[in-house]
Amino acid sequence: MSEHKKDDISRELRRKRRVISVAMGREAADLVLKNASYANVFTGEVLTADIAVAEGLIAGLGSYSGREERDCTGKLVLPGFMDAHIHLESSLVAPAEFARAVLPHGTSTVVTDPHEIANVMGTDGIAYMLQATEGLPVDVRFMLPSCVPATPLDESGAALEQEDLDGFYSHPRVQGLAEMMNFVGVLAGDEGVLAKLAAASLADKRTDGHAPDLAGNGLNAYIAAGVRSDHECHDLQDATAKLERGQYIMIREGTAARNLEALAPLLCGKYGGRCLLCTDDKHPGSLLEQGHIDAIIRQAIALGADPITAIKAATLNAAQYFGLHDRGAVAPGYLADLVVIDNFQSFQVEAFYKKGILAAENGAALPFPVPVVEPRLTERALHTFQVGTLTAQDFRSSGPQGVVGMVDGEITTVDAGRAGAPDIARDILRAAVVERHKGTGHIGLGFLQGYGLKSGAVATSISHDSHNIIVVGASEEDCAAAVNRVAELNGGIVVWKEGRPVAEVSLAIGGIMSSESLETVNEKLEAAKAAAYALGVNRGIDPFMTLSFMALPVIPTLRITTRGVFDVRTQDYV
Amino acid sequence: MSEHKKDDISRELRRKRRVISVAMGREAADLVLKNASYANVFTGEVLTADIAVAEGLIAGLGSYSGREERDCTGKLVLPGFMDAHIHLESSLVAPAEFARAVLPHGTSTVVTDPHEIANVMGTDGIAYMLQATEGLPVDVRFMLPSCVPATPLDESGAALEQEDLDGFYSHPRVQGLAEMMNFVGVLAGDEGVLAKLAAASLADKRTDGHAPDLAGNGLNAYIAAGVRSDHECHDLQDATAKLERGQYIMIREGTAARNLEALAPLLCGKYGGRCLLCTDDKHPGSLLEQGHIDAIIRQAIALGADPITAIKAATLNAAQYFGLHDRGAVAPGYLADLVVIDNFQSFQVEAFYKKGILAAENGAALPFPVPVVEPRLTERALHTFQVGTLTAQDFRSSGPQGVVGMVDGEITTVDAGRAGAPDIARDILRAAVVERHKGTGHIGLGFLQGYGLKSGAVATSISHDSHNIIVVGASEEDCAAAVNRVAELNGGIVVWKEGRPVAEVSLAIGGIMSSESLETVNEKLEAAKAAAYALGVNRGIDPFMTLSFMALPVIPTLRITTRGVFDVRTQDYV
Repeated sequence: MSEHKKDDISRELRRKRRVISVAMGREAADLVLKNASYANVFTGEVLTADIAVAEGLIAGLGSYSGREERDCTGKLVLPGFMDAHIHLESSLVAPAEFARAVLPHGTSTVVTDPHEIANVMGTDGIAYMLQATEGLPVDVRFMLPSCVPATPLDESGAALEQEDLDGFYSHPRVQGLAEMMNFVGVLAGDEGVLAKLAAASLADKRTDGHAPDLAGNGLNAYIAAGVRSDHECHDLQDATAKLERGQYIMIREGTAARNLEALAPLLCGKYGGRCLLCTDDKHPGSLLEQGHIDAIIRQAIALGADPITAIKAATLNAAQYFGLHDRGAVAPGYLADLVVIDNFQSFQVEAFYKKGILAAENGAALPFPVPVVEPRLTERALHTFQVGTLTAQDFRSSGPQGVVGMVDGEITTVDAGRAGAPDIARDILRAAVVERHKGTGHIGLGFLQGYGLKSGAVATSISHDSHNIIVVGASEEDCAAAVNRVAELNGGIVVWKEGRPVAEVSLAIGGIMSSESLETVNEKLEAAKAAAYALGVNRGIDPFMTLSFMALPVIPTLRITTRGVFDVRTQDYV
Repeated sequence: MSEHKKDDISRELRRKRRVISVAMGREAADLVLKNASYANVFTGEVLTADIAVAEGLIAGLGSYSGREERDCTGKLVLPGFMDAHIHLESSLVAPAEFARAVLPHGTSTVVTDPHEIANVMGTDGIAYMLQATEGLPVDVRFMLPSCVPATPLDESGAALEQEDLDGFYSHPRVQGLAEMMNFVGVLAGDEGVLAKLAAASLADKRTDGHAPDLAGNGLNAYIAAGVRSDHECHDLQDATAKLERGQYIMIREGTAARNLEALAPLLCGKYGGRCLLCTDDKHPGSLLEQGHIDAIIRQAIALGADPITAIKAATLNAAQYFGLHDRGAVAPGYLADLVVIDNFQSFQVEAFYKKGILAAENGAALPFPVPVVEPRLTERALHTFQVGTLTAQDFRSSGPQGVVGMVDGEITTVDAGRAGAPDIARDILRAAVVERHKGTGHIGLGFLQGYGLKSGAVATSISHDSHNIIVVGASEEDCAAAVNRVAELNGGIVVWKEGRPVAEVSLAIGGIMSSESLETVNEKLEAAKAAAYALGVNRGIDPFMTLSFMALPVIPTLRITTRGVFDVRTQDYV
């Protein structure tokens, strides 16, 4: 046995000895939550005891005293909450800033799929996120992005094959392979797709699913291939078909996609041990206004879910699914990730302890050290734009091009015919996607109808899933200027009018995340939205989020790609 | 990536591709259980479908055809059963023979603690059992024996420290650390004990418990130290205290210890996801007459347990506890370990498929290759006796010695005073424990009252937990002769009368297991029992099993050890 391992065992031994000593009452605990009513996720009951903490673990439940004590009379203590599936990048802030935002909501663990940054930076993106989350008071676990690029039609910053992902499985915070969106590839037996599933199976890791409404033999095949969860269910029929076949169901309630109301009935009775909670995407405004997993539990209870079943979905069930045996319950030997709330109805988090250390209280996180990312990766993340200065000419077309018709409140589109030039009167705007990762100079041109802009342009480097620059403008000049500004910022959202940016959100980390605080990003984003609406953007759509989906060539009907307007029906360029 | 790993991934990829193809209906399945009503452990329902099997996995549930089909109309199909805790040695036969016995009962997986053979052969004993179980159609998983010797008072064949166990954690069939009987050592913070717990924790392995009636702070400490299960609960109060604190409860129903009747109420309702089934010890007669886990489920249902909850305890719950994500349910992607029974009430196993291959039908296992153990270990296992030829003089004492008073139907004893010589009229028999592992020549002498023997002697090399030779006889001459015969057999049970063995069971593998068939061993054992009773042995006790516990110096009141009669109350020799 190596000296290193001997040291590890010796350290763990001393730790256990102290926990035992505290549990036995021979030594004072580090912390005692006195007289706490706590949710017992094993029995479904609320029980009352002192909760003694030592060495970051719950040492005992009973009658204890500690060097620090918190009177929890009349309060409820719950295990720390887990988000079973999120893309941290969707918060538009750096991971440490995300942590600061969610700690006051009792989030102890999030399982992230760094799909967005991997589309920009490939394995460097995964490495960046691993380093940027190391040691955070929110334990950030990873599922490796399975579908980069999301489609071969995309021009992303990287393509990740099984061989690229494999080395990450040995990282202690990598739990498996993230949402296998390419279920068509699975069912067809695609070599590259199956290699990723095979490698995850051999590493004894989990594979998450993403297969809305897949049923029958297709669902059998998808699950038999090793996909053990799904977070895309939008009705009970879809969910129960998957539960019956052994998938865990992640009930998703995020910013854009919200399935809780439809699926809340699962949080009573027989499926109570097989459901998890997740947000998938959580934007700055909804993080600030609603909170995080706490908000989902609160809403689930309001919808009639059994409180402890809802809490169990956010704790023990998630821990079991991901094989994180050290967390998810208020019980001896479990991590002292403890949330103090007022009651099940108002469900206000008053304090959150991470491994027995106060991490947040009364809505504010306590300070913590921000992880240091190695300079090479930081430099790389801050310089991901390979775009020369563009002119109006780059956005002019020689012949007619497809017009993508936007639909209020939807991200699907309609085929709105063809056009040769912008026509503000008919709400036909110039739109383009500018390849920005590899300096190819590709600019896909087309038109957008229904966006409503009357003058200027809107450009953003968040465009799913490859995060090229998508722009929509009243004129080619405005388009060029807005795109140039995005590139100059090394990424961001720009609202351009009359020769200047009237609003902008810098997103310099990979072109998709800001280095600023969540509050600042949210303010700038709201200001930019207001500026966009002031330019005439249709209030039935989100000026940036809806725009960002216009580049994703997997959703009907027409999309704009770096190679032009693409018809999803015919799988061909217009 | 190594070529080896590439090959593994490539093989797994091809396997997945075929499973997908079968699930999709593009290819015929290897096997289809047609029109099967199956227990869905996820939903608690009985559902009906064709179960398609490919590559040893369940490919799909629906409508399928296969190269082989079995009409299951009117039958019930269940996931293969798991015994969560057993000492395989207790069957008195070699592991392959045990497998042959339990396959017809639908046993797919057993988790064994090779505690008995490790007491004889140390790490060689663990290695022997790993090799002797490699590739068996019953998947034998291991928990590493945590308490060898069971007590420092014992003179066992080996002492296993953390360093000795550590290398085994990387074996693919080792799931963790077996029952930590030394809970006193845990609570006292004993260095050697905590080192074993620490190593198991660091290896991310499970630690099983063994702590009857431990409660309060002691229970907190024991669980906080990392012990996540218990199989010693004999009443609901003990079990619920442990369930509340997060332990999984293994409901034990073995040959000697039987807790099902007391604990069956746990198999309904809220604890249904946290209970497992186990036998702990299962002797030849009860294996042959009652069966295995199938018998426990049948009895649980008869006692009022919800059938699918009882089945879940024997399948999915056990798989979850041990981190065996590939089994425990009838669902796509799970191992095709499938039990066909008639109905929940009579619960007769008609067929058992292991990884989709018929392994047993109508009460008989199909032939399978017996694993080959390397010659060094086989030789070692067959020669574990270091005892010279003994004479009556070796069993005579110079002064008075303690008399161990046996109690009908119990393994506890009473202090029955002192004696200087056997006195058949008063049922005071010569008893001794002969150290047999290391040639120390230690012979602990004493007397036994309540055994009832009128002439001759009974000796056995099964004596808990060190498996020295324990003997009881009407005279010192008989004792010497019986012990010599046991040593000559390289282990076994001998009933000696008038200068010859009137019955014997050879147990040449480590002195604790036979190389013969279970039926033969059982016949010989029953014949030996009859012979012992014919010699006058008290019918209120088992002539061999009860005797084997007289050497275990942890149960009150008096015990016979290799160093003489020991008083458990005073922790001193009499």
